[in-house]
Amino acid sequence: MNIKKLLEDVKDNNVDIDSALEQLKDLPYENLGYANIDHHRRLRNGYPEVIYCDGKSDDHIIGIVEKMNEKGSNILGTRCRKETFEKISKLYPNAVYEELSKIFKIKNEDIVDNGKGKILIISGGTSDIPVADEAYYTAEFLGNRVERLYDVGVAGIHRLLNNRSIIQSARVIVAVAGMEGALPSVLGGLVDVPIIAVPTSVGYGANFKGLAALLAMLNSCASGISVVNIDNGFGAGYLASTINKLK
Amino acid sequence: MNIKKLLEDVKDNNVDIDSALEQLKDLPYENLGYANIDHHRRLRNGYPEVIYCDGKSDDHIIGIVEKMNEKGSNILGTRCRKETFEKISKLYPNAVYEELSKIFKIKNEDIVDNGKGKILIISGGTSDIPVADEAYYTAEFLGNRVERLYDVGVAGIHRLLNNRSIIQSARVIVAVAGMEGALPSVLGGLVDVPIIAVPTSVGYGANFKGLAALLAMLNSCASGISVVNIDNGFGAGYLASTINKLK
Amino acid sequence: MNIKKLLEDVKDNNVDIDSALEQLKDLPYENLGYANIDHHRRLRNGYPEVIYCDGKSDDHIIGIVEKMNEKGSNILGTRCRKETFEKISKLYPNAVYEELSKIFKIKNEDIVDNGKGKILIISGGTSDIPVADEAYYTAEFLGNRVERLYDVGVAGIHRLLNNRSIIQSARVIVAVAGMEGALPSVLGGLVDVPIIAVPTSVGYGANFKGLAALLAMLNSCASGISVVNIDNGFGAGYLASTINKLK
Amino acid sequence: MNIKKLLEDVKDNNVDIDSALEQLKDLPYENLGYANIDHHRRLRNGYPEVIYCDGKSDDHIIGIVEKMNEKGSNILGTRCRKETFEKISKLYPNAVYEELSKIFKIKNEDIVDNGKGKILIISGGTSDIPVADEAYYTAEFLGNRVERLYDVGVAGIHRLLNNRSIIQSARVIVAVAGMEGALPSVLGGLVDVPIIAVPTSVGYGANFKGLAALLAMLNSCASGISVVNIDNGFGAGYLASTINKLK
Amino acid sequence: MNIKKLLEDVKDNNVDIDSALEQLKDLPYENLGYANIDHHRRLRNGYPEVIYCDGKSDDHIIGIVEKMNEKGSNILGTRCRKETFEKISKLYPNAVYEELSKIFKIKNEDIVDNGKGKILIISGGTSDIPVADEAYYTAEFLGNRVERLYDVGVAGIHRLLNNRSIIQSARVIVAVAGMEGALPSVLGGLVDVPIIAVPTSVGYGANFKGLAALLAMLNSCASGISVVNIDNGFGAGYLASTINKLK
Amino acid sequence: MNIKKLLEDVKDNNVDIDSALEQLKDLPYENLGYANIDHHRRLRNGYPEVIYCDGKSDDHIIGIVEKMNEKGSNILGTRCRKETFEKISKLYPNAVYEELSKIFKIKNEDIVDNGKGKILIISGGTSDIPVADEAYYTAEFLGNRVERLYDVGVAGIHRLLNNRSIIQSARVIVAVAGMEGALPSVLGGLVDVPIIAVPTSVGYGANFKGLAALLAMLNSCASGISVVNIDNGFGAGYLASTINKLK
Amino acid sequence: MNIKKLLEDVKDNNVDIDSALEQLKDLPYENLGYANIDHHRRLRNGYPEVIYCDGKSDDHIIGIVEKMNEKGSNILGTRCRKETFEKISKLYPNAVYEELSKIFKIKNEDIVDNGKGKILIISGGTSDIPVADEAYYTAEFLGNRVERLYDVGVAGIHRLLNNRSIIQSARVIVAVAGMEGALPSVLGGLVDVPIIAVPTSVGYGANFKGLAALLAMLNSCASGISVVNIDNGFGAGYLASTINKLK
Amino acid sequence: MNIKKLLEDVKDNNVDIDSALEQLKDLPYENLGYANIDHHRRLRNGYPEVIYCDGKSDDHIIGIVEKMNEKGSNILGTRCRKETFEKISKLYPNAVYEELSKIFKIKNEDIVDNGKGKILIISGGTSDIPVADEAYYTAEFLGNRVERLYDVGVAGIHRLLNNRSIIQSARVIVAVAGMEGALPSVLGGLVDVPIIAVPTSVGYGANFKGLAALLAMLNSCASGISVVNIDNGFGAGYLASTINKLK
Repeated sequence: MNIKKLLEDVKDNNVDIDSALEQLKDLPYENLGYANIDHHRRLRNGYPEVIYCDGKSDDHIIGIVEKMNEKGSNILGTRCRKETFEKISKLYPNAVYEELSKIFKIKNEDIVDNGKGKILIISGGTSDIPVADEAYYTAEFLGNRVERLYDVGVAGIHRLLNNRSIIQSARVIVAVAGMEGALPSVLGGLVDVPIIAVPTSVGYGANFKGLAALLAMLNSCASGISVVNIDNGFGAGYLASTINKLK
Repeated sequence: MNIKKLLEDVKDNNVDIDSALEQLKDLPYENLGYANIDHHRRLRNGYPEVIYCDGKSDDHIIGIVEKMNEKGSNILGTRCRKETFEKISKLYPNAVYEELSKIFKIKNEDIVDNGKGKILIISGGTSDIPVADEAYYTAEFLGNRVERLYDVGVAGIHRLLNNRSIIQSARVIVAVAGMEGALPSVLGGLVDVPIIAVPTSVGYGANFKGLAALLAMLNSCASGISVVNIDNGFGAGYLASTINKLK
Repeated sequence: MNIKKLLEDVKDNNVDIDSALEQLKDLPYENLGYANIDHHRRLRNGYPEVIYCDGKSDDHIIGIVEKMNEKGSNILGTRCRKETFEKISKLYPNAVYEELSKIFKIKNEDIVDNGKGKILIISGGTSDIPVADEAYYTAEFLGNRVERLYDVGVAGIHRLLNNRSIIQSARVIVAVAGMEGALPSVLGGLVDVPIIAVPTSVGYGANFKGLAALLAMLNSCASGISVVNIDNGFGAGYLASTINKLK
Repeated sequence: MNIKKLLEDVKDNNVDIDSALEQLKDLPYENLGYANIDHHRRLRNGYPEVIYCDGKSDDHIIGIVEKMNEKGSNILGTRCRKETFEKISKLYPNAVYEELSKIFKIKNEDIVDNGKGKILIISGGTSDIPVADEAYYTAEFLGNRVERLYDVGVAGIHRLLNNRSIIQSARVIVAVAGMEGALPSVLGGLVDVPIIAVPTSVGYGANFKGLAALLAMLNSCASGISVVNIDNGFGAGYLASTINKLK
Repeated sequence: MNIKKLLEDVKDNNVDIDSALEQLKDLPYENLGYANIDHHRRLRNGYPEVIYCDGKSDDHIIGIVEKMNEKGSNILGTRCRKETFEKISKLYPNAVYEELSKIFKIKNEDIVDNGKGKILIISGGTSDIPVADEAYYTAEFLGNRVERLYDVGVAGIHRLLNNRSIIQSARVIVAVAGMEGALPSVLGGLVDVPIIAVPTSVGYGANFKGLAALLAMLNSCASGISVVNIDNGFGAGYLASTINKLK
Repeated sequence: MNIKKLLEDVKDNNVDIDSALEQLKDLPYENLGYANIDHHRRLRNGYPEVIYCDGKSDDHIIGIVEKMNEKGSNILGTRCRKETFEKISKLYPNAVYEELSKIFKIKNEDIVDNGKGKILIISGGTSDIPVADEAYYTAEFLGNRVERLYDVGVAGIHRLLNNRSIIQSARVIVAVAGMEGALPSVLGGLVDVPIIAVPTSVGYGANFKGLAALLAMLNSCASGISVVNIDNGFGAGYLASTINKLK
Repeated sequence: MNIKKLLEDVKDNNVDIDSALEQLKDLPYENLGYANIDHHRRLRNGYPEVIYCDGKSDDHIIGIVEKMNEKGSNILGTRCRKETFEKISKLYPNAVYEELSKIFKIKNEDIVDNGKGKILIISGGTSDIPVADEAYYTAEFLGNRVERLYDVGVAGIHRLLNNRSIIQSARVIVAVAGMEGALPSVLGGLVDVPIIAVPTSVGYGANFKGLAALLAMLNSCASGISVVNIDNGFGAGYLASTINKLK
Repeated sequence: MNIKKLLEDVKDNNVDIDSALEQLKDLPYENLGYANIDHHRRLRNGYPEVIYCDGKSDDHIIGIVEKMNEKGSNILGTRCRKETFEKISKLYPNAVYEELSKIFKIKNEDIVDNGKGKILIISGGTSDIPVADEAYYTAEFLGNRVERLYDVGVAGIHRLLNNRSIIQSARVIVAVAGMEGALPSVLGGLVDVPIIAVPTSVGYGANFKGLAALLAMLNSCASGISVVNIDNGFGAGYLASTINKLK
């Protein structure tokens, strides 16, 4: 569907308003053949467009960026290989890359912080940083105040307790941990805000690529905790933003 | 720690206020030998006390109820066998039992709705009702406006779409589903509020007691979704309330 | 068995026709030492010969192509490395390669569309295309009318519903999806034709290389759905063809 | 929605036909509170209504039967406890129960065989009969010619080969097997019709409740095979009917 | 080997002492036909004899008790059904039963505390008590000073921290926890003594009968922790005793 | 096929002997409707007929026994409930039941020991006896000399080494063990005869119903070992007999 | 132990023969520091020495070969990288390499066929050849008559049946198959000799690296079958030889 | 926190001792932004600082080494890539690297053996050496007398029994084994000291990367055994040291 054409038709009285409304309700997808781009959310709430790059060819990614950029949207790309970014960067010099978290950002509009509080990203260890940073940059790009507190895992409980005031100042917490995944359980006893637990695939042996942390988080004896997929920093940052923006 | 004794000491000037405050901060546990009851949350925010009955003897459960009742708290018991409830009921005639969800409630104080919006509990099928109801009664007892929409699974997508206005009126959604667990993914495309996905053990064969639904929900291609443990209606209701009460 | 010898015997009246027929019924295998080529199906119904290339050496693959080509059959090769195809291409210049799906085709006879209806290949996302295309080219080469509808996953339910007329025009549907694998369940509520579900290994974390989608599809609450192996586009295309050709 | 009321409104010219059509398209669900009955399929194609009884209370099952019976539909109930059936039987004396497969049937209309060929149900062993019979009675009740061939597992390959003519007379085959689940692979080499494989939980030890047979069937080296959930005789019978009725 | 006969031979000078010693070194087993009782350890170090009752018939258990009692050993029975104990109790009135942990004890000799320090048994929740008590009574019966600290799970971290002095007074710690199994990790940061982690099958859903806690404990980010089998309180108590008795 | 009819035809010269032979070669199955009894093996080699009772109704089992008994075969039934045996016993008073292994035997012919050596059944513990005995009685009934050596698990290695002469006297060894399943590995270092390893489901916690022992046995570092299904004493006894009878 | 020194002592009458014999019985290991070479079996029965190369450094492998070669043994190396073999080949020009199965052989003595019959290696598909050949060369090198029958999987049952006479001429069968692993079950119905089943990791998707075939083979409904580890051609060849050499 | 500054404040009477003590109790962490270094243990007991290098960037590792070296601590790095070590080596020429176990060591202080006995590291095979050596060097660096006994797996039981005196001289045993993981069970029957079992990922096929050995060790029928994570040589060496230093 060509939205512009439709709006012109409305203006020219070729299409009446009700009928236009109907067409608009279900159809803000743009069909590229290999992909249906969803301009829906952005129209409604100023959200950026997001591309999950993993498993897509460079040509497809660039094709999608192109279409999105035409709308003047802010664009966020996750799991982006460095080589792919370098191609994007040549075409869009304002593109920025975060190496650890493999995120790229193209900012065409100012990002407005319209969250109601602060989102806190906590990681258990140094090796969890790539996932934690994916959550951090996602939430930030979606228009939130975000803070980081890293390497405060439960085996040194005082590292965590000494930061109690920072922890208790958050409206939403994203808790990122690998290995035994116990961080959210301890946090759950310290605060009353929602905690989004992100298991990471950090560890070895009977960790089974994050399964150990995932199961631990699902079985947390604390309340107020829910879990996203292993290594899914983006999902956690997105959900944190959704909660933080609730009126 | 004996809280009463402490307060008397304060009154009698045997203990100064700062020192009492210090003692109170970390210690609102009451030690029954076999259990440490946490009066913490209630003191702070009027939350009821919750007992997870499964795996506890009747004597232990009743002992805990007794101590909680002394405080005049509202009490919520989950996974409570009917026989256990009947014993409780004799001692506390104001106790109420919800058969499908195996929840009992003792109401000593009025429940104040201090949530900011409405929580909606959606179930995929009729067989998911016990879990969905556990979420429903939990959220209600914690002081929220809660609504139910049952048996609207994705294999009959119109049942879901026809209820779009109800769905879009919620501030938080709890989506309960067994089998292929696809309900949250479809909902994720319809709303922008947080969705708490609850996999149930409903199904057979390669369902593996809820594993199929759990994995599906963790892998949802929609954003704004997080997951709690299989059949954990209580956890979903509690988290929904936490989110709904965010200022 | 030596087929030539048998036919000579028939010619020389050493073997009568009935007896020769009997011998031929079960034995149209050609023994290459490392492989028994089955010319059976083609003799009966004009089907092409199929080579599953993965795990076979280039020499073996080319040896098999050679023998098949001698019969003048159409030849379909799946999971073929590009380097292998290049060797084949030098020997058989009419060979064609589909890069995404890693299929090669050698067409020695015209392909007759003798299916009774249309096969529709639907994919949930862009990353599922390699598998979806394997199904597409397989069904096409086996002599069917085939159509593609890609990137219409359930998280944007309207992308799917807007294509209802295409979906309802098919005689058989192949539904290809990774992640939570919910696509077949939603389709199952929209049509009354057989749906062949193909889980893909697309996704990460608790996807466990396609296990999440596989289990979801096996547990679908919709009727009329069956499942093939993870990433098995060929199997789905073949079965779709079998169904589409039922008189 | 009250369909009757709508139709009266049409008759009385209170509602015009187009608008009524619109309402009818998406809404042939009847809301019982705990269940949304789908009268959709039957309206369209004379299919019976189906109740999956497992996990539903007797009261709910009877309530649903009652509503369905009011429409004069044929009713099929699967996984029905004997005690439940006895209650149904008192209310509906024409109800019939198949003990092994735990199916009940209420026949209010004649069943028309409108399939194009014959469905054959094959089982590997005697212990697979409950699942095989579930497929048999389902396909039969949906209006198909169905035949059974039981206890012809692959360890005695001649039992199978001796029945080649029966096997080759079918338009669709349902192959039910537990243990190593090899039956569909052997059948796949003997026929060119679609084979629906049903793994059963028959076996012990490393069978892991049907997992062994399920994996074997998904990995079949034969073509033309797809798989349904463990012990899902109903799903196989339903899909077989769908294929058999393709024009 | 008949030990009695051997000793008589020694007494009668039919066998010299060295040769008898040799025979005795490897063979202090008593063959009951269905069981080889090992009197080895007790001879060496005064340990009691232990019977793992689960999966043994009452007759076998009583037969073994009888033989052990003849030696005047102390006897410990684990996983003993109450009915079995009642039969034992009639024959050996000095037998004592611990209901929660299903342990029975027959004390024929005084138990000497020859450990070097104190063993502390810590449990995460009330429902872990049966397993924790199995460890407690085992360690006690083997001759150790043992203390219990129950229901101090990590979701209420202050319950744990408030008991720091008790925790730091132990020479060996047994940490018993179900659900997310995080207790040993937190303890590992508080003490420098060996911690034996016991996962319990307490929990539901994605707990998978203790698998979640088992994996978490194996993946602990703290040092000084090792793990025994799920619910294996006996094994933990025995190992704790072994460590506590090291000179 | 009707065997009787065939033989009459032979007698009446309606069918010549060669042709009858041909028909008989592949078809010694007797079709009971619910079961195809295989008289094949017995005709060839005097083997008894075997019924796997688990999952079959009493009526089916008795019907099969009846047909087998008509042939005068020896009959072996495995996994037979005691109640079922009691019904059989009334009809066939010469039937004998082994309680631990749940085997019944009907002896109509003398059992000839035509094995070439001795089969030794070794069990790790007392709780493995039901499975070990299933192997023992199976091998014995098939006509072999069989010996038992029980409760000689690897944690008391001398129990095993002291029986070296018995162990080295066997032609085939069946090694039955649960828990860590290490018995076959140690045996593999002591003998040069084939060892058939049988994992049992004895154990708890992370035993996962015999999975631990199964995996251990499959990964044995010793040579000359192969494995049958968990708890499959019958399979081990049968295979041991097959090997022992090799000329 | 220094064997040479011992033999000199015997020669010089410093040690009597009985005592030397005793010492020799348990100790034919040669300690290289990083490995204990076992010369035991060869001393007894002329078996070659075997080196499992995978996971060992080239230096270690060559060091072990050196020590073995000093004894004049025949040497068999499995899972040997080609680069490693090339180093060996320079030092021992009589070394021979089988590329597909990655086996190397050094023949210092004639291989005597002292088996009693023929071993037959059967593979389901062309891709199973590396594993099947490992079994073939192992059995051959251990001194057996061995034959190969490849690519006769169950989906083309006549390929198998047409080779019935070869199949029935074997004394032991090694059946190698990936995917659904059904080959041994069908063979089990055709012969009465022991069948050693080898699951291979050939396949994709829900094959899970050979798990599907492994489970299928363990659950075979045929008798006389046992299973070795996934891809363990060596183990199967070794066991086949052990059985074939039974007197 | 800046410890030096605090101490100066104390010296200058700017901070009183009680208050300084309070600050010091919980806070010996040094915050590098990406990591919180814990100087706690070393302050207390002279332990070296340990860096788990896997998953950390070279820059981070070197940054941490730098901070630790400033304190003059001994430093142990595990799972260190050779390339990383070479960078470290240039900066700290006294750094030493153990290739097989990938450990690096920087010794700034003398290591004092303050253990009470000897730690023995036993491995089942040659391929387990990398993990066994990780335990060896860890225990040694922590200040213990440590001995090694390698390649004494259970399939050659005499290799083990011949070393009985070495085995019985240890105060703590670390038993490292892959494949079937039976080594600890046999050791458990020979000694009365604590055994720390380390499963390795050595093996193939149904070993599933160490799962087989892990499960076997958790299910050991011997007492006095506990288990650490797969391939976790460091954890075993650390725990062995903890036990060996118990007064």
